[in-house]
Amino acid sequence: MAPREETHRELQRRMAQFSAFGATAAGGVHRPEATAANAKARRALADWWRETGLEVRVDAIGNMFGLDATAGADAPWLMTGSHIDSQPNGGCFDGTYGVLASTIAANDIRGGRAANATPSVNIAVVAWTNEEGARFQPSVLGSSAYVGAIDLDWALERVDRDGISVAAALDTIGFRGMDKPPPFPAAYVELHVECGPELDRAGRRLAVFNRWWGCRKLEICFEGVPAHTGPTPMAERRDALLAAAHVITGVRALVDEYPAGSFHSSVGRVEVLPNSPNVVPSRATLYLELRSADPEILSTSFERMRAMIEAAAVSAGVRWHMARDELRPPGRLADELQKLAHRVAGDLGEEAMTLDTIAAHDAVPLARVCPSIVVATPSVGGICHSPDEFTKPEDLNLGLDLLSGMLDSIVSGKTAVGSTRKAA
Amino acid sequence: MAPREETHRELQRRMAQFSAFGATAAGGVHRPEATAANAKARRALADWWRETGLEVRVDAIGNMFGLDATAGADAPWLMTGSHIDSQPNGGCFDGTYGVLASTIAANDIRGGRAANATPSVNIAVVAWTNEEGARFQPSVLGSSAYVGAIDLDWALERVDRDGISVAAALDTIGFRGMDKPPPFPAAYVELHVECGPELDRAGRRLAVFNRWWGCRKLEICFEGVPAHTGPTPMAERRDALLAAAHVITGVRALVDEYPAGSFHSSVGRVEVLPNSPNVVPSRATLYLELRSADPEILSTSFERMRAMIEAAAVSAGVRWHMARDELRPPGRLADELQKLAHRVAGDLGEEAMTLDTIAAHDAVPLARVCPSIVVATPSVGGICHSPDEFTKPEDLNLGLDLLSGMLDSIVSGKTAVGSTRKAA
Repeated sequence: MAPREETHRELQRRMAQFSAFGATAAGGVHRPEATAANAKARRALADWWRETGLEVRVDAIGNMFGLDATAGADAPWLMTGSHIDSQPNGGCFDGTYGVLASTIAANDIRGGRAANATPSVNIAVVAWTNEEGARFQPSVLGSSAYVGAIDLDWALERVDRDGISVAAALDTIGFRGMDKPPPFPAAYVELHVECGPELDRAGRRLAVFNRWWGCRKLEICFEGVPAHTGPTPMAERRDALLAAAHVITGVRALVDEYPAGSFHSSVGRVEVLPNSPNVVPSRATLYLELRSADPEILSTSFERMRAMIEAAAVSAGVRWHMARDELRPPGRLADELQKLAHRVAGDLGEEAMTLDTIAAHDAVPLARVCPSIVVATPSVGGICHSPDEFTKPEDLNLGLDLLSGMLDSIVSGKTAVGSTRKAA
Repeated sequence: MAPREETHRELQRRMAQFSAFGATAAGGVHRPEATAANAKARRALADWWRETGLEVRVDAIGNMFGLDATAGADAPWLMTGSHIDSQPNGGCFDGTYGVLASTIAANDIRGGRAANATPSVNIAVVAWTNEEGARFQPSVLGSSAYVGAIDLDWALERVDRDGISVAAALDTIGFRGMDKPPPFPAAYVELHVECGPELDRAGRRLAVFNRWWGCRKLEICFEGVPAHTGPTPMAERRDALLAAAHVITGVRALVDEYPAGSFHSSVGRVEVLPNSPNVVPSRATLYLELRSADPEILSTSFERMRAMIEAAAVSAGVRWHMARDELRPPGRLADELQKLAHRVAGDLGEEAMTLDTIAAHDAVPLARVCPSIVVATPSVGGICHSPDEFTKPEDLNLGLDLLSGMLDSIVSGKTAVGSTRKAA
């Protein structure tokens, strides 16, 4: 393997390169899925993979794979990567860091092989489609389709707020592929920035996630009656936005009814029609999340939400329906990969923190088909989904070293991972 | 003057013609200012005016005038009209009815003159730009610019939610004119649908508005911090939408603190950034209205709003500023024109109701420069700003007769109106 200084320089150079795709004045990137800026990042990634001898494949949902199948058709696969789409006016680190570090780590291992040596494990680097769930809902779309958790056609039919489907958006940028994805891997390893404040607050530099929180993602649609905001008597208004506002404040208040830190809630998006200053809103749709590691909390909070929504609708005199209700149960990441991560971190002189991941990651759908793990470096101030998200260069380098060490241990056979399963 | 049956047929025919411009599946029209559909309606109106011998002028803010200056340069002007822009997915009657009826009434009077007779009053039919305030804020934009209540350049610089200015939008449809508008008239008479339930509820067919409610139109901008809706600890979120939701519910609750029917409030539009399901909103802008006929209520409710906004911002940990604060004071429409309207209604066998107008109308800015009036026909169920707005054909006809009678009385000199003032 190359001296660490070389891989570190390559990482910093690539971070700078990819931060330019969709760069914003605020210092972040605006690179939602299948936008022009996202396409630039995709093309640069494919070029880089090709230059380094990886076989580039793009599957039907736009997932990009960089493959080294030197170990042969019957050998198991090790997969590593993350995503390069961003939130609107998001940051440079979320997702992109993992894809770039994975490419560097994989190529470092490939470059370190003895000439004529036949490796025993194939390697796949991956950039998943629409992890963010910003332009298209749901999030982790590409990885969920890959593992079969959602139907491919259904995934392709999801639309953005302008009614453009995933299929059409991928066609536009030329990334609706026809390649067969690699088989399900023997293990999936993802490196990410923490997206939370725990490491930074504790003055620690590496985290190993041991479980993920569950999430209930709701789209709640209130239907009122359009009317003039002037002469329409107040008692006769059927104001969809008023009902929605009661739910926004109510779901925040709900947090205080559960033990501190056990339950998160949010409304990040609202769509109003006709959204004209002098028309009583006839429709308001809320995109609401309930998150917890405890299935019981997810269940009770959802029931309280239903009652709250019903009361808000009655008081505003509007109808409502649930346009989407997706339950993502909590779960645990692979024990053997957690142990490996802690051991490699120790070898690097760092004691890794064990944390929950509250954010969704592509490693969660992957955990359905193989041992899967996410390791993380600090987010300064815990800031994420913002142009201000930042991870110190030395921490980026350390995370790369952790990932490299983990991949190397698996590829070299020092660490045994689960059996290979083939894609259907 | 022509037999009433002829003008009634012409009115029904023109209502059908103009209802086709921007027609929606719901049975209304989508014809916000300076859209392609709005341009079609504008061109049809100009064609009609030209065919009937009216001189068509388009001023710098896109107001359209159809002029008959037969009475000569020194004679006073009588102006009548309304607007042909609509709310998004609005109705076919609001505004359009007044423009069409005004054209028919004016042409009826012109056609009824004896050959070679020199009239003593010039006539101007008008269609004002952006009355609705839907695509561009503020409303009554064109009439306010005409009377000098707002600066022309400022009006042209207003932008829609895509950042397109009034000037650019009018350029696109070819209706940013260079014509000099007619001088300020001696009187302005507007016919409109009620946009409220009073006539329909009382089983009456004509209304004369005697005063207009004041209005305080606010744009309140909350500034939070974008953050991941998952791992960001609840206590550390700076959620702009949460603060906004507290204000939406609060301003509705405020209504109950004033005597019934004396105060209306609304939030018709909200703009959220980045408006992604998994990002804590970093910005939320509310478009809020306070309406009352009582200046004291407007003042005290505004002060309570300020306190409520401040409390909401503090509790959500966000900053706020007032991006717009426009006070439109209440006022009275011209007594002499009210008397004329009641008299003509009586001649038609109807006792007109005296009502407040809570909705803004172009007659309100016009009242700054001349005696000004709005008369109204029923809105079935009080429905307005909706594809369901409807006025019975026989009531449309009756309103036309009222307008015709009023204009005829003024033009024939039976009713004296205020002196002519020239435009600056």
